Amino acid sequence: MKTTVSIAGASGYTGAELLTLLLRHPNVEVAHVYAHTSAGKKIAAERPALAKVTELSYEPLDAAGNDDSEVVFVSLPHGESQKIIPQFIGKKRIIDLGGDFRLRSADAYSRYYRSEHTAQELIGHAVYGMPELNGVEIKSSSFVANPGCYPTSAILALAPLAAAQLLPPRVGIVSLSGVSGAGKTPSPATHFPEANESVSAYKVGTHQHTPEIEQALSVLAGSDITRRLYRICFP
Amino acid sequence: MKTTVSIAGASGYTGAELLTLLLRHPNVEVAHVYAHTSAGKKIAAERPALAKVTELSYEPLDAAGNDDSEVVFVSLPHGESQKIIPQFIGKKRIIDLGGDFRLRSADAYSRYYRSEHTAQELIGHAVYGMPELNGVEIKSSSFVANPGCYPTSAILALAPLAAAQLLPPRVGIVSLSGVSGAGKTPSPATHFPEANESVSAYKVGTHQHTPEIEQALSVLAGSDITRRLYRICFP
Amino acid sequence: MKTTVSIAGASGYTGAELLTLLLRHPNVEVAHVYAHTSAGKKIAAERPALAKVTELSYEPLDAAGNDDSEVVFVSLPHGESQKIIPQFIGKKRIIDLGGDFRLRSADAYSRYYRSEHTAQELIGHAVYGMPELNGVEIKSSSFVANPGCYPTSAILALAPLAAAQLLPPRVGIVSLSGVSGAGKTPSPATHFPEANESVSAYKVGTHQHTPEIEQALSVLAGSDITRRLYRICFP
Amino acid sequence: MKTTVSIAGASGYTGAELLTLLLRHPNVEVAHVYAHTSAGKKIAAERPALAKVTELSYEPLDAAGNDDSEVVFVSLPHGESQKIIPQFIGKKRIIDLGGDFRLRSADAYSRYYRSEHTAQELIGHAVYGMPELNGVEIKSSSFVANPGCYPTSAILALAPLAAAQLLPPRVGIVSLSGVSGAGKTPSPATHFPEANESVSAYKVGTHQHTPEIEQALSVLAGSDITRRLYRICFP
Repeated sequence: MKTTVSIAGASGYTGAELLTLLLRHPNVEVAHVYAHTSAGKKIAAERPALAKVTELSYEPLDAAGNDDSEVVFVSLPHGESQKIIPQFIGKKRIIDLGGDFRLRSADAYSRYYRSEHTAQELIGHAVYGMPELNGVEIKSSSFVANPGCYPTSAILALAPLAAAQLLPPRVGIVSLSGVSGAGKTPSPATHFPEANESVSAYKVGTHQHTPEIEQALSVLAGSDITRRLYRICFP
Repeated sequence: MKTTVSIAGASGYTGAELLTLLLRHPNVEVAHVYAHTSAGKKIAAERPALAKVTELSYEPLDAAGNDDSEVVFVSLPHGESQKIIPQFIGKKRIIDLGGDFRLRSADAYSRYYRSEHTAQELIGHAVYGMPELNGVEIKSSSFVANPGCYPTSAILALAPLAAAQLLPPRVGIVSLSGVSGAGKTPSPATHFPEANESVSAYKVGTHQHTPEIEQALSVLAGSDITRRLYRICFP
Repeated sequence: MKTTVSIAGASGYTGAELLTLLLRHPNVEVAHVYAHTSAGKKIAAERPALAKVTELSYEPLDAAGNDDSEVVFVSLPHGESQKIIPQFIGKKRIIDLGGDFRLRSADAYSRYYRSEHTAQELIGHAVYGMPELNGVEIKSSSFVANPGCYPTSAILALAPLAAAQLLPPRVGIVSLSGVSGAGKTPSPATHFPEANESVSAYKVGTHQHTPEIEQALSVLAGSDITRRLYRICFP
Repeated sequence: MKTTVSIAGASGYTGAELLTLLLRHPNVEVAHVYAHTSAGKKIAAERPALAKVTELSYEPLDAAGNDDSEVVFVSLPHGESQKIIPQFIGKKRIIDLGGDFRLRSADAYSRYYRSEHTAQELIGHAVYGMPELNGVEIKSSSFVANPGCYPTSAILALAPLAAAQLLPPRVGIVSLSGVSGAGKTPSPATHFPEANESVSAYKVGTHQHTPEIEQALSVLAGSDITRRLYRICFP
């Protein structure tokens, strides 16, 4: 008996990678894929490699309200998943790949994401989906907020020190991420000739992944640590 | 006594590279730089590495009509240099880095560039600026049309065979070019995650550099050869 | 009930990739891995990512003679797999990832690989392991010779034309391969500063994959076609 | 009247780049190039792009003792330039591109380079060749030790803070360098498939460029600062 799953935001880089994995999964049936600009197109039209694997078409995001699958993955830019997720609560299992429900503090959210959260009643309800730390809770949770890229690299590296109360007073974190992390929309800063074979620092000290790292390390340390990323680089 | 030069289209990749070279040249004085979207800005605002080298600002392209320098380089997309160059004829030396005046046939131009040439009276007036072939003519010419990237790689490689009448009946050319050749404007096809560490064929058999190669090789062979690029790749 | 498999040549790039896939396979049990220079080491010492996945150590290649698994993969340089494979014939299923048993002509082998084949009695006994062409035979065969990289790209692209007798008299093939295809041993030609962001042609017209392509297309066309790769590029 | 110059170690990446620049320099005449493994070969045999620019051949390093040019550049691995430079002292101007004469402390040298310096009487005699800091001294010096790659990036960035006594108690430096910095000799760590599109930390806290940075910043600060590179990355 296969589990039926849907993906909201299936045409971005993250959603497409997820889709490819789920289409191969022996115990999963992909029921619906929802997308914004790709709505109405066949998946195969955008991803020729999947032409023999699925007949599905992208449905408009609005149609997700009537979704009949057991699990929905949400792979939308931040600010967008908070609009779509409330309607799924209590109806199915939700796995959010975006940043909207990782933080447990509405203040930290508005400060770092520079906008008010529109589903504040759900803040703090998701399990932080890092298997190495929360494997047991993830299994039984019906709402999982998956970690960001920089937090994954920083939290896993610092977790043993945090758990042993050995974090020094200040920790500098330098993480490097690929340009695909900035998504599918071309921009001058991620244009090939500008970004190739190079790195550049961005959002130094203000990156929205900062409070996510602080939050996870505070849980591990058993006390509030408010440290700061000095730098995040970007190749 | 330095030669005064100006650049029309100085903020694109080609124009900026040219500008950097000319600013260092011991016998050249850069008098004016003209640009479209960058008009009004200091060069140093876009190219911090030139901050200590020049105080110039980009002037609007329209101002090029009053240019008072001895030589003007034109580094504009095709279709644009044919609008600006007629006003310079007879007044100064012109070196065009674009494709508008390389071909000697208005028909070939309209077929491959898919638009009518708006300065047909100047077609065939420029010397094709490939020093290995036309070094003498370039020196005395007041209007030079510099070669494209793919033609340079193909013509120089095939020139000895063409001159010796040894070109086989059909020649397949596979040229690879960097993404910067597509210019400064971001697009989905040249977005970093799509283009990195990969190649893709484009404009197979229809690339606008095809007649430029055919024309140069025909001159060398002393007879009309109309061959065709089979493929042009693009990393 | 899992199938037991072994890998001879498990520490090269190909063997290590294969090992990673097999260790995750739900119906496979990796029984032994054999290697030359890595013999005696734990797999985890060379591949830290597999530390929690396997306790196996590399055994010396000589020990493969006593191998007790049902299937053996051979992932050795050409010239090496012909030494080790004869002892497995009739005892277990063999899947060779190298070039020694792809060709059905000893002459073609010696001409392109520039050495005499030392197991000539086995030439022509392996099924060519290209699933798109030989899926049925592969399933029942106990000796499979997997295709090379360039042949895979060329044969799959040209197969429809060959089967429809539409191959033109001469076919030029330009294939580009990654540097990892040249294996794990550093060399001047594949040194990073020499190879990065560049391509270079090698073995033009003499590459050992040429007869492999000719052979597969001849089978598809139903007649002998002896064409030639004009070029193989190498990024 | 051109200045005659020679290069000892002209076939490595640094020496070859230098050679290309000097061959184009209007006021320089390259008199001799010396090399180890390339001795006896024409430059053009190793660098085809220079075939029309020079007729010179590499001479053996031993022949440098009889060098008759006014300036000698030394571009040898550390440990090697200290063997060759003493014979040039007092006879000609020396510009060393290696690390042997940058440090003013024999102790720091032996600790970080892990060997005894064999020309201790010359330690401290060279001007540190960073034009932004020592432009005046460089002009009149007959012995210049050019800076390393990481020190250039770190010293120029921190110089204003050091000069203003604003360096914090601890400074973490993360520098990224290209693989070509490791030279022309292939090795497993710099093999293309291992190094491409990746970074890896090396010599953390022990890199031989550490004391070079400390020394330059101490001069600027007017007091001894012994800080430490936390990390140096390597793409």
